[in-house]
Amino acid sequence: MNKIIQEGDHVLLVSERGRRWLLKVEDKQFHTSNGIVNLGELIGKSYGITVKSSMNLNFYVFKPLIHDYIMKSKRGSQIIYPKDSALILLFGGIEPGSRVIESGIGSAGLTMALANVVRPEGKIYAYEIREDFIKIAQKNLTRLKLDGYVEIKHANALEGFSERDVDVIILDLATPWDVIPIARDSLKPSGMLINYSPTIDQVDKAVHALLTNGFKEIRTIETLVREWQVQKNKVRPLGRMVGHTGWITFARKLI
Amino acid sequence: MNKIIQEGDHVLLVSERGRRWLLKVEDKQFHTSNGIVNLGELIGKSYGITVKSSMNLNFYVFKPLIHDYIMKSKRGSQIIYPKDSALILLFGGIEPGSRVIESGIGSAGLTMALANVVRPEGKIYAYEIREDFIKIAQKNLTRLKLDGYVEIKHANALEGFSERDVDVIILDLATPWDVIPIARDSLKPSGMLINYSPTIDQVDKAVHALLTNGFKEIRTIETLVREWQVQKNKVRPLGRMVGHTGWITFARKLI
Amino acid sequence: MNKIIQEGDHVLLVSERGRRWLLKVEDKQFHTSNGIVNLGELIGKSYGITVKSSMNLNFYVFKPLIHDYIMKSKRGSQIIYPKDSALILLFGGIEPGSRVIESGIGSAGLTMALANVVRPEGKIYAYEIREDFIKIAQKNLTRLKLDGYVEIKHANALEGFSERDVDVIILDLATPWDVIPIARDSLKPSGMLINYSPTIDQVDKAVHALLTNGFKEIRTIETLVREWQVQKNKVRPLGRMVGHTGWITFARKLI
Amino acid sequence: MNKIIQEGDHVLLVSERGRRWLLKVEDKQFHTSNGIVNLGELIGKSYGITVKSSMNLNFYVFKPLIHDYIMKSKRGSQIIYPKDSALILLFGGIEPGSRVIESGIGSAGLTMALANVVRPEGKIYAYEIREDFIKIAQKNLTRLKLDGYVEIKHANALEGFSERDVDVIILDLATPWDVIPIARDSLKPSGMLINYSPTIDQVDKAVHALLTNGFKEIRTIETLVREWQVQKNKVRPLGRMVGHTGWITFARKLI
Repeated sequence: MNKIIQEGDHVLLVSERGRRWLLKVEDKQFHTSNGIVNLGELIGKSYGITVKSSMNLNFYVFKPLIHDYIMKSKRGSQIIYPKDSALILLFGGIEPGSRVIESGIGSAGLTMALANVVRPEGKIYAYEIREDFIKIAQKNLTRLKLDGYVEIKHANALEGFSERDVDVIILDLATPWDVIPIARDSLKPSGMLINYSPTIDQVDKAVHALLTNGFKEIRTIETLVREWQVQKNKVRPLGRMVGHTGWITFARKLI
Repeated sequence: MNKIIQEGDHVLLVSERGRRWLLKVEDKQFHTSNGIVNLGELIGKSYGITVKSSMNLNFYVFKPLIHDYIMKSKRGSQIIYPKDSALILLFGGIEPGSRVIESGIGSAGLTMALANVVRPEGKIYAYEIREDFIKIAQKNLTRLKLDGYVEIKHANALEGFSERDVDVIILDLATPWDVIPIARDSLKPSGMLINYSPTIDQVDKAVHALLTNGFKEIRTIETLVREWQVQKNKVRPLGRMVGHTGWITFARKLI
Repeated sequence: MNKIIQEGDHVLLVSERGRRWLLKVEDKQFHTSNGIVNLGELIGKSYGITVKSSMNLNFYVFKPLIHDYIMKSKRGSQIIYPKDSALILLFGGIEPGSRVIESGIGSAGLTMALANVVRPEGKIYAYEIREDFIKIAQKNLTRLKLDGYVEIKHANALEGFSERDVDVIILDLATPWDVIPIARDSLKPSGMLINYSPTIDQVDKAVHALLTNGFKEIRTIETLVREWQVQKNKVRPLGRMVGHTGWITFARKLI
Repeated sequence: MNKIIQEGDHVLLVSERGRRWLLKVEDKQFHTSNGIVNLGELIGKSYGITVKSSMNLNFYVFKPLIHDYIMKSKRGSQIIYPKDSALILLFGGIEPGSRVIESGIGSAGLTMALANVVRPEGKIYAYEIREDFIKIAQKNLTRLKLDGYVEIKHANALEGFSERDVDVIILDLATPWDVIPIARDSLKPSGMLINYSPTIDQVDKAVHALLTNGFKEIRTIETLVREWQVQKNKVRPLGRMVGHTGWITFARKLI
């Protein structure tokens, strides 16, 4: 990877107080409550440096990672949190070369993580009915240069997917049980279907649909991530945490 | 991917009652408490099929995924759980092409997940002092055909890593604070250091070492994964769960 | 309270290795894998002492608390865990003098905690259809000398409760929604109804019944208690924990 | 208990939208964003009624429970949460007649719960060095008519407690390890010492002090309470929750 910042590159700018921005490097000034940072000066410098703002406060300049892109992406809808995306990737067996159908795509929070792993040989086929979501998703993917690995389709999942023999299908829909019988046709034998739902009623019905459509190895989990403050003589979890996002159900197709 | 089972391939065999085995397909019989399964008969068949045991009970035949290989790997030590590996991968920014140092390797639970994502261009440099662990790790990686992406080194992390400018360094050591200053030298600017520790005392000291060695963006998390039983009119979490594995600390190198 | 152990008193005997027994003090020997303890010798001694077994190992002698009695009670059914009983008591407003209906009683795990708090003026009216449970419950309450504060009724909750204007009603039944309309009649205005259910399906239906029967301030919670190992340089949660017991729903009666 | 609201009584007033106030009933008007409620009209009415505001919106009138008083108490400091107080009460063996030392008292969040259970025979001896906290605590206890069961002492715990042979001692201090040796002298043999600390460093040192001062049966826990939304087809935990309050350590005195 390149270690020198070039015009047009992105940086993760972090203030001393821990505020974060994901910015495109160009010849302009960036105003914060901790002073102005001259972005143009970063060109030709290395990632990992510290720069001073006009108020003489420190700002750290990091190369943004996929997780930073996801957290700083534009959002038109509730995204699937990285904690859930992480489990979907590993527990779902998504790897370089995987062919994956995703429906819907929302703001592409999960799609970015998927595309980043399956590249360069794999592909994400992303179905979405809302045009406004597609626009946001497209922007987020393009910024990450991952749009080449994602084929976004403006289509209703209820009418079926065109692909066949895909490795994994991921559903994040209001009524996944309507799509599960159709999804089955596009999944290769032994393939993985993953359902993400925020309410337990949806999980219940989705699992029922999986059972009646010949899926096995059905497993439903939820994840809690607790962040800790680790300071000298003050080690403890943060006082507030995310109490719930959604349940992830994994299931495998039996012929 | 190939969809037809060939001699020497692995299968995930699942009994009706949910017991699982990861087996190599060859012309032999596999004995279970639910009857004998003739593995030779699987050759030439498709993944995703159901076979009958000698007791006429159903066994499902799936293509094993990386998660299955990790869960069914040989173990000489406590492995890093997949729930933690999953977060390390995504939050750590590990992706195709990443160059990663891991120390120690243990039974390669995390190494398998890492190698599977960085391939084919990336590389895992795995430092381990115990020969017995190296043997087990080598076996687990070879079974998955991932050994080509991992360079295992029988060496003490305290004496330093030979590589330079790696993207990520992952420490799973008894005294990570001793290695953090050395590890810093091998990490590219803006690179990610990840520490995994089972006790909070270790976390405390590791974070202190990170702070005094110029790391920023330090974040410590722990994860709880709760599995649910989703049966008709009986939806609830399982009665017992894993209450703790370890804390993961992420930090980025500032020049 | 008396500090001298008398014949017939109970003691909590704890071995050096942390095994615990709740025993009646009488002139006999108690055999353990760590040697024999002579219970008769405890008579006339103080609580809080250490005695030696025949193998010269230490045993600690404590006065048992209500929590010890609950954990060491005879069980014919799954008990409500102390962690849940604790929240029921405080969040439910149970206090000295409270009149409480409980249905069913099971092994009296919760009943013991209730009776201990409402005494001496209050009363627990405990409905149970299974005679075998009543016998066990009676034994557990008598051992604690709390039977005087509990009126156990061998009756079906579906046929209604005889009491009127009670402060709190606690339901731990398979189909609480059948009883909620009847329970309402026995509850004083502004009184508290508490439902305990192990599956979310039951919670869903119970809350629906509460809503349609004029209850307000409905609040459903679940509790996780994590136990920690705090040893020199080895501070961490235990590896396994109780992942689920049940949901507690609180609701208040509007006229 | 009286069921008719009299002048000077407290009510828990709840708006249709779920906002709550704990109010003294007197002949005055209470202004809310949902309209004006005439408190004087409640006199002579029953608890559990619905009244209309000047905007014709519903307000429910409940008799406040101890939990409501705690949640709506004046605060000068972080209170011990009811979830933690609940476990302290039951796991700590606090019951009618218990004599308990508490230090410090803070805003009396826990003290209210303690006093309500030990009455009428028991007593809480509450040590507090800050006068501003004592004033707030006194107000909160008086409102609940529990001040007769609590003896507040403006004194430094480090100088020792005057009482002897108490059943339970509860420490909520910055440096509990300094007080543990002194506290031991005031505790009856076999008595319970409970330590509450928000950071793990404090827990570590407190447990060390307990071990070196002859305490046994040491057990440290933390509690998570997750609140659920149970609405038709929308059953799920709330999105945000309290991620941490403090650890509770229980220990028993050996002679």
